[in-house]
Amino acid sequence: MSNYQVIPGGVTAPKGFQAAGVAAGFKPSGNRDLALIVSQTSAIAAGVFTNSQVRAACVDYCRQQLQKKASARAILCNSGQANAATGEQGWKDAQETVNLLAQQLNIADESILIASTGVIGERMNMTAFRKGIPPLVEALSDKGNDEAAQAILTTDLTTKTIALETTFDNRPVRIGGMAKGSGMIHPNMATLLAFVTCDAGVSTSLWQEMVQRATQRSFNQITVDGDTSTNDCLIAMANGQSRTPAITEPGERADQLEAMLTAVCQHLAKAIARDGEGATCLIEVTVTGAPNETAAQKVAKTIAGSSLVKSAIFGRDPNWGRIAAAAGRAGIPFDQDELQIKLGDFLLMEKGQPVNFDRDAASHYLQQAAQGNYLKDDTVTIEVNLGAGEETGTAWGCDLSYDYVRINAEYTT
Amino acid sequence: MSNYQVIPGGVTAPKGFQAAGVAAGFKPSGNRDLALIVSQTSAIAAGVFTNSQVRAACVDYCRQQLQKKASARAILCNSGQANAATGEQGWKDAQETVNLLAQQLNIADESILIASTGVIGERMNMTAFRKGIPPLVEALSDKGNDEAAQAILTTDLTTKTIALETTFDNRPVRIGGMAKGSGMIHPNMATLLAFVTCDAGVSTSLWQEMVQRATQRSFNQITVDGDTSTNDCLIAMANGQSRTPAITEPGERADQLEAMLTAVCQHLAKAIARDGEGATCLIEVTVTGAPNETAAQKVAKTIAGSSLVKSAIFGRDPNWGRIAAAAGRAGIPFDQDELQIKLGDFLLMEKGQPVNFDRDAASHYLQQAAQGNYLKDDTVTIEVNLGAGEETGTAWGCDLSYDYVRINAEYTT
Repeated sequence: MSNYQVIPGGVTAPKGFQAAGVAAGFKPSGNRDLALIVSQTSAIAAGVFTNSQVRAACVDYCRQQLQKKASARAILCNSGQANAATGEQGWKDAQETVNLLAQQLNIADESILIASTGVIGERMNMTAFRKGIPPLVEALSDKGNDEAAQAILTTDLTTKTIALETTFDNRPVRIGGMAKGSGMIHPNMATLLAFVTCDAGVSTSLWQEMVQRATQRSFNQITVDGDTSTNDCLIAMANGQSRTPAITEPGERADQLEAMLTAVCQHLAKAIARDGEGATCLIEVTVTGAPNETAAQKVAKTIAGSSLVKSAIFGRDPNWGRIAAAAGRAGIPFDQDELQIKLGDFLLMEKGQPVNFDRDAASHYLQQAAQGNYLKDDTVTIEVNLGAGEETGTAWGCDLSYDYVRINAEYTT
Repeated sequence: MSNYQVIPGGVTAPKGFQAAGVAAGFKPSGNRDLALIVSQTSAIAAGVFTNSQVRAACVDYCRQQLQKKASARAILCNSGQANAATGEQGWKDAQETVNLLAQQLNIADESILIASTGVIGERMNMTAFRKGIPPLVEALSDKGNDEAAQAILTTDLTTKTIALETTFDNRPVRIGGMAKGSGMIHPNMATLLAFVTCDAGVSTSLWQEMVQRATQRSFNQITVDGDTSTNDCLIAMANGQSRTPAITEPGERADQLEAMLTAVCQHLAKAIARDGEGATCLIEVTVTGAPNETAAQKVAKTIAGSSLVKSAIFGRDPNWGRIAAAAGRAGIPFDQDELQIKLGDFLLMEKGQPVNFDRDAASHYLQQAAQGNYLKDDTVTIEVNLGAGEETGTAWGCDLSYDYVRINAEYTT
């Protein structure tokens, strides 16, 4: 299935997409803080948004917009201010922002989606939008991915972007993506944002289903500190500019496209988990032997999110007990006498009981991961077999270090 | 309702209960590690146990036993070894342990309940039971509460014990309790244990209901790090030795007894939260304006368990944004424009938007709490009104400090 390859270009790799990022004045640092992704033609659009009861105005705006009309031309995203906890004024500011961009792009308000990330409880800096939007539109380019990816960051250490390519009937089909998020480092500067572009032709309903499933297998399976944000959002646009036959039904083509979409989302999700504040390594937890995929995902995410498992890995401690305890409390029934746990290549537990293993070598394995490079050789794998079925699920997290506490405690408002 | 007072004696304060604690050899340190609580006469007994799929043999044993017969004479508890992840052998060891004590006390096996806490995955040290049980029974005394309370500790910093007294028809009625737990400091040395004694006469079904509700309003509402254990258990015995009329129906008397039981459980639960590893203060979160008590409890616990809220409080940061974000993701519907948040006496948010408050004074309030004494003046209160109903719920937690990570990372197996 994975007959795709990595290509450069991020969200501008798919045909017919341009991007740009400028400094408009939302961030006191003067860094880039306003990003734009535009499709030359109308694209179908699917969104996934935070389930929080405390939501930013832009989240409510996009959700309403996509319910009315599942298509878009442009995504505008600012960083530095979240437009959350801003009440009625926040909603008006969101509408005005959309209108400002619509005039500049000379398209309808209804073709624009918006996202924000940053400090909550402050009224949006409308001057920054008024000042920033004209040069932003001016800067649009099919080489604009990196500037846009920078402009959506808050406290992230790195940009997170990828593009993949496959072929349908010898014609290239591409999906690109960018994301931000590194746990909630600064208070209220939470937020996972992801923007995906695709040049395949695909029906709206199929695309929406694919985006939901890919999100479930990627962004919904990462955990840095269990906190979710007022502004979380993923928007995925597909504009059909690859000129390949439209995919309107489930089947081989749809599966091929979905596999590539899932790979894009998983790459971005892992990059976010790895960029968790204070993290020294990525933790990948795969649960097998589950009664269904959802159950496997739930157990995997419980393990990846356990403060005790995360602390043990930071301490380079091959601690099967904490992994078993986390699996046990995930709410999925299994027979504890069937439980098997592996850490990297080390078998730690079999039939629900600990087995002898080389502790020094296992600790060394954890040590190695911490010395790996970013997104390379720095993954600690945990494999748990519940012995309760045939299904599999994966989750990603990072270790819990002193720096997590330092970063989160020492920021004072 | 709270017409009860604190009295000395812990679990031996209620009439007809004795206790003891000795060093039997489970702990390498040589500290007390075997505790016994005995009722002179048969007591009705109710238990609440871990929901984990990975459970200690003693948990399964007690659950089975109490299903057969809701009464007991004795609770035996060792610390140092958990008898979890020990398979069939663990079950046999549990049965043998019960039998050893039954012979020594000259009572039936069926009158004995057992609990363990400590390292998981090791076969129980049966020699320690054989050696320790005779002197343990010998040491039984109505002044034995403190020794027993010490003997159930693992990494706790302090014993946790309380007794309350009220009167029915001018006759004293007492409830005593002890507990252990301080988060999962050492790997696999998790576990919340609580033992409650009562000398009121009460029907089995009423007692079971009271114990369930009191647990829900106390132990189930504390969170140190979100991890639960293989061995968690609460056992509550009532032996009727106060010679007050048996409570067999709901009503004023039942309410009075339940209020006292709930107070005992809340005292112990708060002591555990305050003893969370690395904690510098207790956090008490009260949610009002909820559609029902369960919803209020869920929101309160989500806030008390948020790593970001906990880090902010450790950093003495009056961060309303993190509190609002945690409330929003608790899964309980409310209108964000009705949200009100108070920290101590400081109003931080009103109608879903931040209000001006004296940040220095609020930060000073947090600083003060950290300098408070153990269980005195060291409580940070957070009050959140959802504006979505009339019901209330409370949860307790502690702040997240560098020491949490140090304690959990630097222990290596």
